[in-house]
Amino acid sequence: MSQSVHVRAFRDLVGDGGVIDDPERMAVYVTDQRQLSTGSTFAVLKPTTTKQVADIVRLAAHHGIGIVPQGGNTSYCGGATPDASGRQIVVSLERMDRIREVDPVSMSISVDAGTILKNAQDAAAAAGLLLPLSLGAEGSCRIGGNIGTNAGGLSVLRYGMTRDLLLGIEAVLADGTVISDMRKLRKNNTGYDVKQCFVGSEGTLGIVTGAVLRLAPLPTRRATAWLKLARGAPLADLLALIRRESADLLTAFEFMAARSIALATEAMTDPSTLRAGPEGAVLVEFASSSRHLDLDELMEAVLAEPIEAGWIEDALLAQSGSQRTAMWRLRETIPEGEKRRNGSVKHDISVPLSSIQRFLDLAGAQVRSYDGDLELSVYGHVGDGNLHYNVLVPAGVDRIEFTKRIESSLSLQLYDTAAALGGTFSAEHGVGRFKKHLLERYGDLGRIAAMRRIKTAFDPADIMNAGAIVCPLGEKSTR
Amino acid sequence: MSQSVHVRAFRDLVGDGGVIDDPERMAVYVTDQRQLSTGSTFAVLKPTTTKQVADIVRLAAHHGIGIVPQGGNTSYCGGATPDASGRQIVVSLERMDRIREVDPVSMSISVDAGTILKNAQDAAAAAGLLLPLSLGAEGSCRIGGNIGTNAGGLSVLRYGMTRDLLLGIEAVLADGTVISDMRKLRKNNTGYDVKQCFVGSEGTLGIVTGAVLRLAPLPTRRATAWLKLARGAPLADLLALIRRESADLLTAFEFMAARSIALATEAMTDPSTLRAGPEGAVLVEFASSSRHLDLDELMEAVLAEPIEAGWIEDALLAQSGSQRTAMWRLRETIPEGEKRRNGSVKHDISVPLSSIQRFLDLAGAQVRSYDGDLELSVYGHVGDGNLHYNVLVPAGVDRIEFTKRIESSLSLQLYDTAAALGGTFSAEHGVGRFKKHLLERYGDLGRIAAMRRIKTAFDPADIMNAGAIVCPLGEKSTR
Repeated sequence: MSQSVHVRAFRDLVGDGGVIDDPERMAVYVTDQRQLSTGSTFAVLKPTTTKQVADIVRLAAHHGIGIVPQGGNTSYCGGATPDASGRQIVVSLERMDRIREVDPVSMSISVDAGTILKNAQDAAAAAGLLLPLSLGAEGSCRIGGNIGTNAGGLSVLRYGMTRDLLLGIEAVLADGTVISDMRKLRKNNTGYDVKQCFVGSEGTLGIVTGAVLRLAPLPTRRATAWLKLARGAPLADLLALIRRESADLLTAFEFMAARSIALATEAMTDPSTLRAGPEGAVLVEFASSSRHLDLDELMEAVLAEPIEAGWIEDALLAQSGSQRTAMWRLRETIPEGEKRRNGSVKHDISVPLSSIQRFLDLAGAQVRSYDGDLELSVYGHVGDGNLHYNVLVPAGVDRIEFTKRIESSLSLQLYDTAAALGGTFSAEHGVGRFKKHLLERYGDLGRIAAMRRIKTAFDPADIMNAGAIVCPLGEKSTR
Repeated sequence: MSQSVHVRAFRDLVGDGGVIDDPERMAVYVTDQRQLSTGSTFAVLKPTTTKQVADIVRLAAHHGIGIVPQGGNTSYCGGATPDASGRQIVVSLERMDRIREVDPVSMSISVDAGTILKNAQDAAAAAGLLLPLSLGAEGSCRIGGNIGTNAGGLSVLRYGMTRDLLLGIEAVLADGTVISDMRKLRKNNTGYDVKQCFVGSEGTLGIVTGAVLRLAPLPTRRATAWLKLARGAPLADLLALIRRESADLLTAFEFMAARSIALATEAMTDPSTLRAGPEGAVLVEFASSSRHLDLDELMEAVLAEPIEAGWIEDALLAQSGSQRTAMWRLRETIPEGEKRRNGSVKHDISVPLSSIQRFLDLAGAQVRSYDGDLELSVYGHVGDGNLHYNVLVPAGVDRIEFTKRIESSLSLQLYDTAAALGGTFSAEHGVGRFKKHLLERYGDLGRIAAMRRIKTAFDPADIMNAGAIVCPLGEKSTR
């Protein structure tokens, strides 16, 4: 059957407003966030109900048409865009963006999977609660994508990743079966927790159409400090001390190397006066929903010891909301700073906390020996063992060419180092299409075999986002 | 081949000390914790290494011999003991109880799966850290069983269930494949998180042989209060208020009905003077690892508002370690109090926090209308929406007969009520063999289908703990 016949059949299912087949309008759906690859499709479908999603999946499966589920299309790993074959359709959840319920007593929010993260955050806040998932893309990424990539971000240290927030799920399997378990229970041990399979599955096991997320009390007080790290400051020990003495009120421990801070500063129209110490800086924040705790007082008490020990050269406490905002703006402008400088090759490294310093030492030496002129931008959620270890694209060099060269050479050396320290090549960005070869290189064989079993169990015909993560058993690797 | 030939082959794999085939010595391995059912086996194997476990599994799979993995044999649902066929062997992990590593900087502990929970707690504490998993059976249950049942207990409110603590896993699949992913990473998004499948799987997908668990700073200060609930006190609102104003320092919110408190008091040799209010009592605890917070002061400030509102009739703050211990001892003696009174039929209910009061009202009416003379013992981790809603076995009545009668009649009414409120029949005890029919009755069809796919993916021949949770696809239900 020709693709135009299929498009007509899909149109019957979702209506005219639910189908895009004009190449110009489809363009944004087939190019990944980092613009490293452009795929091809013959239709972008935009269902409005779970039933429509199930109908689409059944029809596609019947004709062997591959499906690429898409939320906000903010994947860093090409997990949300089709391959070049032109035989996969894109199913965008962008019209399924209803907030179904906020339950303030149960502290939960139930949403359509296409809900933009920011909108869900706002709905929770309106009920006096916090949806503790916060990341750079929050204004455009969607909850289904957050689940598909087990999104992390800025609140992991205190509240965990998306997995830790997920209470209930609604999803359509590759044969059109609908899993409907939108319960808002904290505890529900009744056999395998099927929803866990979808977390981090990047659309390869089915299409998540709805989710229930846990909420937390909304912080009403914050204390924020900018720490200039002294030479030789032991990052992991500093973190352990602050965690312990803040009694888990610590919500952020964000490390930034001096170069990253400088890049961000250059990119700001109203440049920050915040500076790095010899080993960079750490942004520390405590948050509390209680009227009975003085967090500034606590911050001062907690920091006295590491200042005394000479780990911190200088600590600046935010004295106002605008000072706090300025500290965060500097941290959040780093990616923009990299972009202005001609971009960066990103390495989303995670190592055990006890190996962070060792990784920084070894990786730094590797970069220098690879090319003494390369510059790094290193920052990240060190409180979770997560470093964004980015190699800056030199001025005047083609970004995509450089990226491909580094990713096939230096990047592997860096990942080897992370792996040797018990770390990983992807802390929070996922695998998608771009990092499949890394999964094969570093994944435990038993674990990969189990992953392929799971893929086979849910999607034996490889309908769902084929080409991402793993293939079913029996299929030859498509790489 | 005869079973004695098999026993000889197993003896070759694990040595004389690793095989029990004397019926008398096997007895404790085939009877469940609640002594509701006694199964049969021809051998109990006690491997000492992961390789031995893999060898056992391969040999058993080759001959189609079923395997029941066993940790501390403390399942409330018959999940750890063999069926009556005599064709399943028991593989006990009790000799694999080595603590492999405590990493204080990474805040993690790596253990053999047969490690007794208490021993792991102690090893963490010796390094100044907390393994935040605590439950009644901690002196005998083992980490592998905690993972297999996603154990909850007393620390869930602050630290989550076993799933939330699990960083790494080592497991043997039904074909002898070993998954080895003992990394201690907070963040590692590299495809499906295979270890999640084992959490709550009760030995039906493979045998967990090792685990890495996250640790937390060890609390050094606690504030503990006994709240007598006033008539009409809104439990969920009280919880929400205390959570908010304690800024997540809340570690326990344990509800006890008056009857449960009386039962515990009767069972104590040195009876407590603590009493219930008209709606029972709540044990509240804050904990902190910081030297800079005064938790008693915080507790007083937090409780002022609900006292003012008339929700709490009286609040007693523990003034010493021994007063604190006395409060916890009362809470923890409730199961013993029930046992002394002739036992209870346990219902491990969970409902959304917003429906707890409604459940108590509806369920109470159901019990009264079923039999006006029945007495209840109701208590639990209400902070997680979890109620142990137990029907006391009347004096002079046969416990097992009564249990079976209630479980086939009144229990179903109570579970119906929980289900209608978006709740579940098993918050933390699991499914095992005893609650399989409930999974079929209340489970979403799509979810059960997905569970059977997962079972099929990992164990198509139904070697691993057959009869518990679900069967592979293609098999008729064994119920």
